[in-house]
Amino acid sequence: MGLVVQKYGGSSVADAEGIKRVARRIVDTKKAGHEVVVVVSAMGDTTDELIDLAQEISPIPTGREFDMLLTAGERISMSLLAMAIKNLGPEAMSFTGSQAGVITDSSHNKARIIDVTPGRIRSALDQGAIAIVAGFQGVSQDSKDITTLGRGGSDTTAVALAAALDAEVCEIYTDVDGVFTADPRLVPMARKVDAIPFEDMLELAAHGSKVLLDRCVEYARRYDIPIHVRSSFSGKRGTWVGKLPEGGAMEQAIISGVAHDTSEAKVTVVGVPDKPGEAAGIFRTIADADLNIDMVVQNVSAASTGLTDISFTLPKTDGHKAIEALRKVQGAVGFETLRYDDHIAKISLVGAGMRTNPGVTATFFEALSNAGVNIELISTSEIRISVVTREDDVAEAVRAVHSAFGLDSDSEEAVVYGGTGR
Amino acid sequence: MGLVVQKYGGSSVADAEGIKRVARRIVDTKKAGHEVVVVVSAMGDTTDELIDLAQEISPIPTGREFDMLLTAGERISMSLLAMAIKNLGPEAMSFTGSQAGVITDSSHNKARIIDVTPGRIRSALDQGAIAIVAGFQGVSQDSKDITTLGRGGSDTTAVALAAALDAEVCEIYTDVDGVFTADPRLVPMARKVDAIPFEDMLELAAHGSKVLLDRCVEYARRYDIPIHVRSSFSGKRGTWVGKLPEGGAMEQAIISGVAHDTSEAKVTVVGVPDKPGEAAGIFRTIADADLNIDMVVQNVSAASTGLTDISFTLPKTDGHKAIEALRKVQGAVGFETLRYDDHIAKISLVGAGMRTNPGVTATFFEALSNAGVNIELISTSEIRISVVTREDDVAEAVRAVHSAFGLDSDSEEAVVYGGTGR
Repeated sequence: MGLVVQKYGGSSVADAEGIKRVARRIVDTKKAGHEVVVVVSAMGDTTDELIDLAQEISPIPTGREFDMLLTAGERISMSLLAMAIKNLGPEAMSFTGSQAGVITDSSHNKARIIDVTPGRIRSALDQGAIAIVAGFQGVSQDSKDITTLGRGGSDTTAVALAAALDAEVCEIYTDVDGVFTADPRLVPMARKVDAIPFEDMLELAAHGSKVLLDRCVEYARRYDIPIHVRSSFSGKRGTWVGKLPEGGAMEQAIISGVAHDTSEAKVTVVGVPDKPGEAAGIFRTIADADLNIDMVVQNVSAASTGLTDISFTLPKTDGHKAIEALRKVQGAVGFETLRYDDHIAKISLVGAGMRTNPGVTATFFEALSNAGVNIELISTSEIRISVVTREDDVAEAVRAVHSAFGLDSDSEEAVVYGGTGR
Repeated sequence: MGLVVQKYGGSSVADAEGIKRVARRIVDTKKAGHEVVVVVSAMGDTTDELIDLAQEISPIPTGREFDMLLTAGERISMSLLAMAIKNLGPEAMSFTGSQAGVITDSSHNKARIIDVTPGRIRSALDQGAIAIVAGFQGVSQDSKDITTLGRGGSDTTAVALAAALDAEVCEIYTDVDGVFTADPRLVPMARKVDAIPFEDMLELAAHGSKVLLDRCVEYARRYDIPIHVRSSFSGKRGTWVGKLPEGGAMEQAIISGVAHDTSEAKVTVVGVPDKPGEAAGIFRTIADADLNIDMVVQNVSAASTGLTDISFTLPKTDGHKAIEALRKVQGAVGFETLRYDDHIAKISLVGAGMRTNPGVTATFFEALSNAGVNIELISTSEIRISVVTREDDVAEAVRAVHSAFGLDSDSEEAVVYGGTGR
């Protein structure tokens, strides 16, 4: 029986009852003979409440002090969880990110983990204790200041500790049963996936699946730490995310799932002179404004005019910054006008199996066409096809694609990757 | 212009408005040319709310994890205060007790400070920043675990930092204007004291005055750090607590004030055989039960019976433990019965001047007698007289004594110590 890292999100420890329920689960794992390290997020809405308080004080709270503030949230949940465990019998000790040896760079509010030195955790485990660690936080290598890891930080803490402690598995407990072939709120027929390779999970996470963040999956892939995503409420087996087994069940496994994302906006730069350097000028402007873009499409130039249109998508929250930055260079770059559209949806089909299965793209487009969904942009990778549609069409589009690839739960054609979790 | 340590209690930083008001005061001090270190408590009721949460989880929360939990409170107030200051212009950095170098023993929930190594604070000041430090918390020398200092801990943090940084003064901001000659809620004529020697403040604090705790005053006296107790709301000059100036205004300064305390209970051990070793047996029992007693009085033995009564006072919260412990040794010690009374009040008259002024005791007792207040126990030190009365008599008794010693605010006879703050 090896070491298990478990991570519980804020909804699992939202109140005293939740904390006690989680404590029982942890104690059961310990009693089954495992060494247990637990990473915990702040209780329920604590972090949002702290952000609200900070905004009453300072218009744009950032930096060192903001991180100091936010890390109070996990301090509360982790110590309460340790008390709840001790109350059931086993010894438990809680550790801040700094005490747990989570060393980061100095980028406050979005720090990256650069090393994990879990000496105190190892020592607590050696004494037979359960170690509780604050997620989402670390300490900067240079300044010794407290840092936070940004969105999805607690999952990353869990995977990083699992790697540093050579854990057998990193269990991510959440309020759903695992990874689904599509968002069950849009697709009632969506099916829980039993196992999925790192690569597919990365694409799903990067393109709208909320269960895991791409950053955490990327970390797990690099150190080959299997992740088990499961519900802290039901206790059922969830989804294993891991390395594709050699040989594997490649033939039968085509598609892992359908992701959708309505958080992006589309910017179209209209009437760009179709000559070398024009696109570069546009994207240099965007990069200089520190904005991350997602899909980029340039339409074929209309021969008669010598002008072309360039479209890209980016988070809605960055939309106005992009427009502002581009307006400033309109004269220099020489485009005609800008169009901004934040009523779009991105639908992505993901599956390593599509590499070797011709016809996936055709089936995908046919499904959308049969559902009467218009496609505005297309972008592909080796294991993914994404399209942009009207936001209003998103549910219809996801259901149509889900069904066309036999993912519906009453379908014969199961989508499974053999190996790890079955 | 030297270094000033300022301490703000929970009521001063109870909400965003309070934090902004405190920030303005701090910035004013900085702009006046001082280096400023600020010690801050948790916002308003935060600590009580955390204790409630802990009690939902575990019946008697204690130890390491409880300290980890409680220290989240100051983490929130200190980072918000730093943000509020930065928002006004000056640089500010917040530090946990551990980061500020507050080193303690390992007694969780009531740790004692054993060293202060404020290297990071000094370095922040050298960079021109205002340093904000979490009160009430430290880090244990042996285990490197987070500790809390117990009741009045933030005041002690402030004084300890002032000593370690060689501050010019430690300003304790609170919700009253300073130290009064009596509790203004009982005595409307009570007068603010301009200056008071450490010794008198120690006696007042030890016998019921709530403004400062004896522990903090003791620390200040040991390192000779003047304390300025003042209001964070009015900004008026408050009370200076310091070393009695040499020569000083001793002649005119007889009495510093009248303290009262209704938090104690009286235990009377009735019918103790009047022979050597009996009292020792009783107080060994109390000591073994880890109870602190305050006043002790043994009445003269009635010659006819050879029996005597021994009375003592102790905190009401420890009353039942004392009775239980004594019942167990009733046979061995051989007393007749126990009486327990928790409707008592202690009234204490404090003043270094009483050493050289005969008649103070007589005036004190006459005042109580004229007010019709019965005295149940008497205990004295060189600069204090305390009596126990009925709890119902406390207001009447304090007013009578206050008036008899010319402390009322319309009185001619001002009670002042020369020097420091005038």
